[in-house]
Amino acid sequence: MSELLVIIVCGLLSIAYGAWAIQSVMAADAGNARMQEIAGAIQEGAQAYLTRQYTTIAIVGAVVFVLAWVLLSGTAAIGFLIGAVLSGVAGFIGMMVSVRANVRTAQAASQSLAAGLEIAFKSGAVTGLLVAGLALLGVAVYYAVLTAGMGYAPTDRVVIDALVTLGFGASLISIFARLGGGIFTKGADVGGDLVGKVEAGIPEDDPRNPATIADNVGDNVGDCAGMAADLFETYAVTVVATMVLASIFFSGAQAIELMLLPMVIGASCVVTSIIGTFFVKLGANESIMGALYKGFIATALLSAVALAIITFFWLGQGTEYTTTSGTTFVARHLFYCGLVGLVVTGLIIWVTEYYTGTGFRPVRSIAQASVTGHGTNVIQGLAVSLEATALPAIIIIAGILVAHSLAGLFGIAIAVTTMLALAGMVVALDAFGPVTDNAGGIAEMADLPAEVRSTTDALDAVGNTTKAVTKGYAIGSAGLGALVLFAAYTEDLKYFAANAAPGSVFEGIDVGTLFNLSNPYVVAGLLFGGLLPYLFGGISMTAVGRAAGSVVEEVRRQFKEKPGIMAGTERPDYGRAVDMLTKAAIKEMIVPSLLPVLSPIVVFFIVRAVATPADAFAAVGAMLLGVIVTGLFVAISMTAGGGAWDNAKKSFEDGFVDKDGTTHLKGSEAHKASVTGDTVGDPYKDTAGPAVNPMIKITNIVALLLLAVLAH
Amino acid sequence: MSELLVIIVCGLLSIAYGAWAIQSVMAADAGNARMQEIAGAIQEGAQAYLTRQYTTIAIVGAVVFVLAWVLLSGTAAIGFLIGAVLSGVAGFIGMMVSVRANVRTAQAASQSLAAGLEIAFKSGAVTGLLVAGLALLGVAVYYAVLTAGMGYAPTDRVVIDALVTLGFGASLISIFARLGGGIFTKGADVGGDLVGKVEAGIPEDDPRNPATIADNVGDNVGDCAGMAADLFETYAVTVVATMVLASIFFSGAQAIELMLLPMVIGASCVVTSIIGTFFVKLGANESIMGALYKGFIATALLSAVALAIITFFWLGQGTEYTTTSGTTFVARHLFYCGLVGLVVTGLIIWVTEYYTGTGFRPVRSIAQASVTGHGTNVIQGLAVSLEATALPAIIIIAGILVAHSLAGLFGIAIAVTTMLALAGMVVALDAFGPVTDNAGGIAEMADLPAEVRSTTDALDAVGNTTKAVTKGYAIGSAGLGALVLFAAYTEDLKYFAANAAPGSVFEGIDVGTLFNLSNPYVVAGLLFGGLLPYLFGGISMTAVGRAAGSVVEEVRRQFKEKPGIMAGTERPDYGRAVDMLTKAAIKEMIVPSLLPVLSPIVVFFIVRAVATPADAFAAVGAMLLGVIVTGLFVAISMTAGGGAWDNAKKSFEDGFVDKDGTTHLKGSEAHKASVTGDTVGDPYKDTAGPAVNPMIKITNIVALLLLAVLAH
Repeated sequence: MSELLVIIVCGLLSIAYGAWAIQSVMAADAGNARMQEIAGAIQEGAQAYLTRQYTTIAIVGAVVFVLAWVLLSGTAAIGFLIGAVLSGVAGFIGMMVSVRANVRTAQAASQSLAAGLEIAFKSGAVTGLLVAGLALLGVAVYYAVLTAGMGYAPTDRVVIDALVTLGFGASLISIFARLGGGIFTKGADVGGDLVGKVEAGIPEDDPRNPATIADNVGDNVGDCAGMAADLFETYAVTVVATMVLASIFFSGAQAIELMLLPMVIGASCVVTSIIGTFFVKLGANESIMGALYKGFIATALLSAVALAIITFFWLGQGTEYTTTSGTTFVARHLFYCGLVGLVVTGLIIWVTEYYTGTGFRPVRSIAQASVTGHGTNVIQGLAVSLEATALPAIIIIAGILVAHSLAGLFGIAIAVTTMLALAGMVVALDAFGPVTDNAGGIAEMADLPAEVRSTTDALDAVGNTTKAVTKGYAIGSAGLGALVLFAAYTEDLKYFAANAAPGSVFEGIDVGTLFNLSNPYVVAGLLFGGLLPYLFGGISMTAVGRAAGSVVEEVRRQFKEKPGIMAGTERPDYGRAVDMLTKAAIKEMIVPSLLPVLSPIVVFFIVRAVATPADAFAAVGAMLLGVIVTGLFVAISMTAGGGAWDNAKKSFEDGFVDKDGTTHLKGSEAHKASVTGDTVGDPYKDTAGPAVNPMIKITNIVALLLLAVLAH
Repeated sequence: MSELLVIIVCGLLSIAYGAWAIQSVMAADAGNARMQEIAGAIQEGAQAYLTRQYTTIAIVGAVVFVLAWVLLSGTAAIGFLIGAVLSGVAGFIGMMVSVRANVRTAQAASQSLAAGLEIAFKSGAVTGLLVAGLALLGVAVYYAVLTAGMGYAPTDRVVIDALVTLGFGASLISIFARLGGGIFTKGADVGGDLVGKVEAGIPEDDPRNPATIADNVGDNVGDCAGMAADLFETYAVTVVATMVLASIFFSGAQAIELMLLPMVIGASCVVTSIIGTFFVKLGANESIMGALYKGFIATALLSAVALAIITFFWLGQGTEYTTTSGTTFVARHLFYCGLVGLVVTGLIIWVTEYYTGTGFRPVRSIAQASVTGHGTNVIQGLAVSLEATALPAIIIIAGILVAHSLAGLFGIAIAVTTMLALAGMVVALDAFGPVTDNAGGIAEMADLPAEVRSTTDALDAVGNTTKAVTKGYAIGSAGLGALVLFAAYTEDLKYFAANAAPGSVFEGIDVGTLFNLSNPYVVAGLLFGGLLPYLFGGISMTAVGRAAGSVVEEVRRQFKEKPGIMAGTERPDYGRAVDMLTKAAIKEMIVPSLLPVLSPIVVFFIVRAVATPADAFAAVGAMLLGVIVTGLFVAISMTAGGGAWDNAKKSFEDGFVDKDGTTHLKGSEAHKASVTGDTVGDPYKDTAGPAVNPMIKITNIVALLLLAVLAH
């Protein structure tokens, strides 16, 4: 119990940090009346969107809540509620701070770069630490209530089921938030650019563009609230899946201790992340990226130390563990697994930066290809997006094999838990992005002096890199987290098969031979799982296209009906664009979100109807792995490709020197070609790609729930 | 033996048909001197390219030949040689006819549509029937030599190894031909269009464009020789893999009979394909597609009848079979499996037409998206390409499950064999494409009257559809064929494990539990296999970009150095562009082609070094399935997406009416946006996508060979 108390205190620390940081952001100067008016419109739009999104999710959630209560238990239903509500709270508070920090960052940027950086990063840190802290608190407090409070044994199925539904609650929010937010933000961005930059010839963020407020709202609901929900989910489900594995693999005191371990790691990393935030300080070289990396590296190093302390002193480095499946390891090996998680994180960030950074071959090759036209730009971008999957996949493969050789499946789970324990810091880096992006927009719209805009541009450029890098981390961790969920599925199935009552659906299931690749249901499951990310990606790309199309029409309508807009004498109706996109995004997110939720259930019952229960479990299991395999490649290729296109376009802003030595400036034909690539990359990297993360995880957690329901 | 004789006679029939068709094509009028001159340049370029390509492959092939002799046996090495040479011969003869039929089609088109169609289709039928006939003859004659001639028992490993290396010979040609041809054709197409249509503002096939001959050469080396090698391979490896399965699953007379069965099916379908070609006749409605489909449907129906005769009379419909793994079925079930193969073929063609045809939602949505710009065109095209994978995957899944429920793994093999037995007819439809495409080019360059061009355009439009449809068939059959190869891998492994000598690498391997999805090496293998099509796709897209870039530079140089070209007073140097592309394509094809060849070997030995042999076999097996799963999606999405973009562009040629009722004509901004999409789609559908087919198969056949070498 004393450990649980420490964990909960660490979780509360993150809330205390959040409160302090919010208060410190809010205390900053909010700028002049025009700036506050613009920021007010963004706040209003963002709040309206989130309210509507959460209302819609609440309807779906209410149905799931009742189902969970009826099919499982009251504790499970409440677990679902906790996961969903806390995920929503983290996203909501984070976004509310973000839409207030934007204008303050713009104002601070008129003082100095350091001041602007401080506010933007502090606002990001609120979201980051709330994500990690609330996810940890949700799991730890509910676990404490169930065990110490209600007296269930930690390994009791009631506890496990309740934790899994908690993870599912987080998942459900996540898929809706990622997809809805992604459609909103890119509908606004693509639509606004098409009609503003291309047709009307006005710059981005020009106040005459009726879609410009919607674009700024979109940054917040997509990159801030969407990413927060995504990583809240990965964090929660990975901790929960690791606990499930611990409860199955071990017994007695060891089971309880190792069930606590993921929470202990999470708790210590909340503390190291808080400390890390204080290392984010602009150095003498004025490198913003350097300042942010200082914070990240400090967190990673301190986390390694914390992990060493946990394994060497709390567990005792030589303590021996043997899983029920016969893997033997000592506590020290778990420390090495944690290091594997940290190294994988570092390498993925490094590779993502290589593929999306302006200075390296991939982005340069896209910029070079822009010189010969729109078509070659897109071809090269697609080539980069395909190629960019190889190294991350190899890193993930190496991580899996090394962690497994150290401590089996549980070792992989600990590696991923440690990777995710850094989520607080990583989300802080990401949520910094929309704040600086908005700050630039506000500076532009409020006609602040050019120096302010160039300061916010410098911050924004770094924000683009951190956003790309976070996406690499989010998809890598989602893939690995999903593999842990998959392991939980197979181990759970083993457990239920071993304890099956006569006549139960689990009777006689032999998990050792179940997932045999020569079973046609396994091959069918793999293929069916494989098609889900493709179909999901296709639907979400189409949704963005449709949303963008409606923005184009709305803006054209306003330009036509209010001819004074372009002359600057009439104010566009920003609210209508926001309102329209809100409706479009909510409408478009429902069907694709239900695809991964319902697939495991439908596959199970269809196969069960035509074949044996064993075939049905095999098909569902293989489907999970199919989703992970193609999902990983689809998501990495989309996010990396999109990031590379974005930065290829940015290469032209300072003049791109091609291989013949000719310089191509903004406005050149080559630049226009690069804008096409960037437009294509937008839904790739901000809608379809990131939304694949939650879909990978939700398919897996639904399958885990399905087992619980069948066993009930 | 009497069956073998009949099979060989049927195979020879295809050669007789080929000889007759060639003579009948060559007898047609070859047009005026200018036309012959142009056609001569195309012939020369195509021959130069193929000669160089085969010379390069011969070097790689010589190394493999020696390796096969040393590591396996002389019979295996000779098998390799037979597969490689016959595949090369089919492609070479087919292409030689194709580059002579083009000018005759142009000439015949000046008489009538029916006359043009007849020559173009007959030329395609030469390639088609040579592919099916030579593949069948290669397998059957060598099998006869080994068994009846040299006295080996049909199920002897010497025979099996020799047949597998024969398949590998076909594979090696296939990957080089697909990739080299793909890079050549799209380098010429994309490069030529960029500098011709976009920069110089001259139409496609304008004789002033120095890349125009290269473009016409490309059609032949890509769509004719490349596709021929691809389907020759799928045909050969599927027949071989089915024979391997028969030799393992059955014993005694049943084994021999069922080893003959795939060849018997192939032989009967050669005959039905020949009969089918005579059904291709233009009806009163002048529908070219209708004429071609008449031939296809006749072949399919006759094949079903032939299949019924084979199973009901030759095998005896009630004959019972039991495999060594315990599956029991009667001969009648194999007939149903064959029907499954025919139905899968029909459905895939139907779905591909839906996704790439001008009249349906997907292509219309891309055309509509072009109205808002280049970016939205590409976004919608990508959305369609992703979505287009779902239905084919479901069709394939259904086919696998139904065939398996009828007759187990062997049932799947028979379904795929039957699907491929139609290859002769399908390749005929495809090889029709480059002939009509070239005919149009020749008509344009030789300044034939506009009516001729409009007749060749009508033929060419149908050629585009048949090309797209054939690609759907090629990838579907490649995926299924690869699954049969994968089954052969697992069954072979079982066989070697059961017969392992003490101390052998196969000792103690338990295939029943080997490919367990909870083994980390299986997960690692799946992920590694999954990355191969992505990496391969990325490299080949980059190669096309690079080749196109060098064409652009060459053409710009010629325009600059010979100012008379544009005025029409000076003749461009067509040969240089062809020569340059030849070098580029050959250079670029080597490394990516070796990737799938070496991967199974490298994975095996790396895993073997750090883990057990069982883990190594598991990792390789999972890798094979990983390649199939992502490869299938990558290839379908690329080929379908590319086809849809192509036809979206064509929608504008007759004027596209958007959803607001505005008509967009050729030359409009929307049309320009659609050209961008088409350019992107070019390497998608003609280089990277199709080249994934052979890479899926070659990985699997190399793994099968690896087993043979290890067992040796």
